[in-house]
Order: sequence, then C-alpha cells, then structure tokens
Amino acid sequence: MTVQPQSVGIVEARRVAFDEPLTLRCGATLPGYELVYETYGELNQDASNAVLICHALSGSHHVAGVYADNPKNTGWWDNLIGPGKPLDTRRFFVIGVNNLGGCFGSTGPATLHPETGKPWGADFPFVTVEDWVHTQARLADHLGIQRFAAVMGGSLGGMQAMSWSLQYPERVAHVIAIASAPHLSTENIAFNEVARQANLSDPDFHGGHYYTHGVVPARGLRLARMLGHITYLSDDSLAQKFGRALRHGKASFSYDIEFEVESYLRYQGERFAKFFDANTYLLTTRALDYFDPALEYGGDLAAALAPATADFLLVSFSTDWRFSPARSREIVHALVKNRLRVSYAEIPSPAGHDSFLLDNPQYHAVLRSYFARIGEQTCR
Amino acid sequence: MTVQPQSVGIVEARRVAFDEPLTLRCGATLPGYELVYETYGELNQDASNAVLICHALSGSHHVAGVYADNPKNTGWWDNLIGPGKPLDTRRFFVIGVNNLGGCFGSTGPATLHPETGKPWGADFPFVTVEDWVHTQARLADHLGIQRFAAVMGGSLGGMQAMSWSLQYPERVAHVIAIASAPHLSTENIAFNEVARQANLSDPDFHGGHYYTHGVVPARGLRLARMLGHITYLSDDSLAQKFGRALRHGKASFSYDIEFEVESYLRYQGERFAKFFDANTYLLTTRALDYFDPALEYGGDLAAALAPATADFLLVSFSTDWRFSPARSREIVHALVKNRLRVSYAEIPSPAGHDSFLLDNPQYHAVLRSYFARIGEQTCR
Repeated sequence: MTVQPQSVGIVEARRVAFDEPLTLRCGATLPGYELVYETYGELNQDASNAVLICHALSGSHHVAGVYADNPKNTGWWDNLIGPGKPLDTRRFFVIGVNNLGGCFGSTGPATLHPETGKPWGADFPFVTVEDWVHTQARLADHLGIQRFAAVMGGSLGGMQAMSWSLQYPERVAHVIAIASAPHLSTENIAFNEVARQANLSDPDFHGGHYYTHGVVPARGLRLARMLGHITYLSDDSLAQKFGRALRHGKASFSYDIEFEVESYLRYQGERFAKFFDANTYLLTTRALDYFDPALEYGGDLAAALAPATADFLLVSFSTDWRFSPARSREIVHALVKNRLRVSYAEIPSPAGHDSFLLDNPQYHAVLRSYFARIGEQTCR
Repeated sequence: MTVQPQSVGIVEARRVAFDEPLTLRCGATLPGYELVYETYGELNQDASNAVLICHALSGSHHVAGVYADNPKNTGWWDNLIGPGKPLDTRRFFVIGVNNLGGCFGSTGPATLHPETGKPWGADFPFVTVEDWVHTQARLADHLGIQRFAAVMGGSLGGMQAMSWSLQYPERVAHVIAIASAPHLSTENIAFNEVARQANLSDPDFHGGHYYTHGVVPARGLRLARMLGHITYLSDDSLAQKFGRALRHGKASFSYDIEFEVESYLRYQGERFAKFFDANTYLLTTRALDYFDPALEYGGDLAAALAPATADFLLVSFSTDWRFSPARSREIVHALVKNRLRVSYAEIPSPAGHDSFLLDNPQYHAVLRSYFARIGEQTCR
C-alpha cells in the first residue's frame, strides 16, 4: 500500500470510556459515555502543541490519514493536516473526536441503553454544542492536555471552537472558526426543519426506534442530504459543475435522471443514507438551531464573548450563503469590542459553504501562516 | 355579503371542452381536453382589450374576485386586478385559466381517463410551457380573441407569456414577464428534484396512482411546499418575519415547534397538501425544468427570441434569489439585441420571489402606468 506524500499515513481510531455521570444542558444525565477519537503527530513534553478539531454535521473523528483495512477512506480534512501541510503534524499533536450523540462510534442513539439492552434510539437525550465542549474537555484531561494550542472547526465545528473560548477560556490559546456563525439564521433553521421533517415523517422512522424494526429511514436521510448539498454549494458552482446538461441530449419526458445535477444529488443522498444515522442527524440539526451564546445576553454578542481570552482566526468564503461572510464579521466585531486579538480572512471562492473542506490555495496559505505563528508562540 | 371596493366581485369559473386532438411536445396525443377559466371585465367590440393571465406552480384560473359560496377564497392576483386597480377591469377584459395538467378543474392527472374510466394518474402525459400556450390559444379562439392586448404572468407564468411571443407573435401585443427567467438555473432544477423525490418516494404515492388507493402523498407534498416556501422568501424577510424567537422563550429540547418559522412552514405544508395534487406538482416542476427556448439555438437567447414582435415589460425584485434580477436582465439584453421595445423595472423589495404576488406600491405603479400605455395603444 502506498501512502500519499505528506499524509499522516495509516491511523487507528481509539476509544475512551468516561464513568463519571454527565448532566447535559437539556437536563438529562448520562451515567457514562464513550468517545471515539484519533490523534496525529506527537504530544510534546509540556503538552503545549495540541490542536483539537471539531467536526460539523456529517463529520467524524476521522480527520486525516487512512485506515489499514480501508485505504480509500481518507479523513475529511486530510488536505489540511499532515507532515508539511498547513496544520503540520511534525509540529502539532492533532485530535479528532466523534461527538457525543454521533454515529461513528461515540455513545449515541444507536448505542445500547445500559438498562434496556436495546438501542437508545429516540430516547437518547438532546446534546448541544456546550455539552460537546464539556466532553471534549474530558478527553483533553484523559490525554493530559491542560491547554490547547488551538481548537479549530468549520461550520458547526467553528461554533464548538468558539464555545471553547467561553466555557474553558483558560484552556484554549487560539480559536479558529471557519465558515461559521454566532447562531443560525432563520433561513438555516428553516432548512433544518425541512430536513428534520423528511426524517420524522418517513414511515421507516418508527418514532426514532427504527433499529429494532430492522430498517432505516433512508427516504428521509436521502432528502435531507440532497437539500443540504444544494445549500452547501453556490448557485454559480452548481451551474459550473452541472449546468443544464440533459443526460440524453434532449428531454426524454420522465422523472428519471434528466439533468446531471439530479444524478449528483441522488448519488449523494443514497450514499449518505447508507452511512449516517437519522437520530444523530436530528440531534445535530437541533444542536445547530439551539447554539446562540448571545441569547442570554439579550442578543448582545460582544457581552456573550466577554469571557474569551483566546486569540481568534475567523475565515469565511465569498459565495457561502449558508454561513455567509457577514456572519463571520459579526463575530469579528464582537471580539474586537472585547479588545481581543482577531485575524479575519474573507476568501474568494466559487464553492459556497463547502469551501471550508476544499484545497483552496489562499485559504490554506492563511491557515499555514496562522499555525506557524501559533507554533512560535505556544509550542516551546 | 360585502364586496371589497375595487374588487371584481363575485366571479364564476367556466368550463370549455375542446374535441380536437392535441399532440403534446412529449409526443403523446390527448383526444380532447377541458379548460376551466374565469373572466373579469367586458370584451370590447373589436376584442382588442383582452389580457391573459398565466399562472405559476401552484396558481389557478381564480385570479381575482371571490366565489358566492366561498367569499374568503380571493383570487391570487386580486390586489392587481379590478376596477381602478393597476390592471383595470373597466378597461380590460381579463382571463385566468387553469393550465392543462392542473388540479383545479382543467383536464389533468385526477381526470378520469376516457378509456379506463379511472383517473389518469401517472399516465397523464408530460405537458410543457409550449403546450400550455397552444391550449391557451384555443381558449382565445373560443372567446373570439384574435390578438391579446397583453399576456402576463409571474415566475412560470412569465415563461408562458414569453413563449406566447415566440409561438404566436402575431397574437400578442405586449408581454409582461414578472420575476421570471429564460430558463431555470441549475440550483432551481436541484430544488425541484428534491421536491419531486419527496413526492415520488412517499409510500402513499403508489407510482402516481394514489387516487385508486384512496390516499394522497401528503408527506411528500408537505415537504415540497415547505422547501418551496423557504426559496420564495429572502433570508432577510424570514429573519424579519420570524427571527429566532423560541415559542416557549427557551429551548424545550424537542422536535415539536420550537422556532416560529417552523410553525409557519408546517402550516403552509399542511395547507398545500390538502388542496394540491402531487401529479400536477410533478408535471409542473418538469415543465419548469424543460423550459429553455434558447436550447435549440445553442444557448443563444437573442436568436431564440428573434420571432418575437411584441413589446415587453420585464419586472424583477431585488431580493428574489430564485428568479434573480440577473435572469430578467438576460431576457432584456436578448430582446434589445432584437431591437424590440423593452421596459424593465427592478423593484427594491425585501420579500424575495414572493414579491410578485404582493402589493408593493412601486411595483404596482409600474404595472399601472404600463397598462395605461397599453390601453391608449391597443384598445380603441
């Protein structure tokens, strides 16, 4: 097996169990839970070079590298993380973790309930960005990391990074929030609601207890993902990628695939329905909806961000209409009001929200130089 | 019963049967068909004051006024059409027609098939913008109208108005296309595809033959409409209308209605599923996808519009991202290349695509003055 140059190579997921009960924001208490995570690079002597990567809606702990038994399964941010890459694993110790409530190995709706021996299903409690950050802090304890050099994420991952600076200001030196927002817009909540209803109304959902029926609400997951994909791209990038090309050169008057974009969306939907869990999808969209640190400050984001002491890097992309540059600028303004050190880059990109996952040279150059600065500052 | 001032008052739908076979663009031939229509005002002596209104995705022939037995069912463009209104029925004879394949009385998927005695269902042939225009021309013949003073529509209705000028250039003096486009963008096709899949994958769809199963694919229709509604509004107007207000003041951690926008979308979806037909929805989204007069001219819209002789008024709305001003300007440029008389108004409006249905003073002033000009020119 050949490994790509600058790849972290073959990686292995690890699992850690926490026995201490965890009370969630929703009021429920989990008696204990497990988190699945991966690490790349080496933790240095004084544990000052750790970077936590927080994942978005459909992400996981598998951030970089490949698996020995599945060499095509490359981590979702592999283009960014590795020896010599913008987040250089020769210098930094990088951690990816599957969030609580997830469907890639951490305790979640598909996990067996300790009392009933059946999957939690719809009884799994609601989890929030704040809860995730608390569990990530337990993972940091476990790994012997008192303070992260950086916590970084895109989209929902950026919300977690931001929340770190409020919940554990003394434990994070730099926050990197990419294509993120201080809270979802009404339109975003509306899209989430359609995606949720697609799942909730699928007859195979069985009130969230589909596991015991031996089915999955694949129709709902497919629709949710198709819709999501439209909003992760820009109008222009869809036009550029697929145009109005007719599969058969002319209209064949059917509901089969006529236009190339239909083929793309159906493929993405099919694929997603095979690997993602509907209950995790529902929980995660609600976590997105609920995230709003300014809420208890009457909408005053600057007041909400007052506890933060970290340095910040915000990045947005010109054609991202789901988490537009204007949303990142709201965060920048609120941070500046708090006299924090803030860097902000608005990257020209045709690719919409998806840009945060892509190999855009300008974007990667910004991250490279920012991590170089972190390296000089925090990793002795 | 009191009728609003400037209302056309109580109206009645009429029905006309055409026995001549109609060969559609898809190749199928209907042995005959019926159209349901309404008229407001009086046709003048030389039949020079007729205005045809073409409806969009969910519209109907009920454009203005109310029904005696249902005084709350006001026509969908009632704010525009009536005595003293921008399209003044004291001067013009206005016609609304339910398109072929529709679900408000014209021959469509719910109509009984003449041979089987069962509803056509999924066997109803695909209809296109061009087919609709042909049937509308038969209706004009029936009413004794050789040439329309104007053909007008918004969104998909605007596409029909445009197509009139190509299919029957000698039969239309003015084309008024509002919030329209020369063809759907890739993103628009993508949204249509999600809405279609929601219906096609609903177990109650039964391959389009749900009528005989005594059910309707309500889940699919609800999802399609919820999604549609998001795209008919603007991000700003959603924020303005619903914000992030939590129903119970704080998160109650459930998938019930938490945010006001969820309540709005669910209501709109429920309502739509009760009055609209899924097969008509599918046919109409495909008619939208397929409309592309420039296709057989290698994408050269100016070449495609060469047959047109009408005067044109194009109107677009600043925050309409489904049929953006840029799309109307494409049409304007192609018409100007053909040295036609074109007026174009880009109306500042916060309300997105829906603006074409709303009572925006600047928009209505443009239409009022344009119809005054038509009146002077064409109605002797």
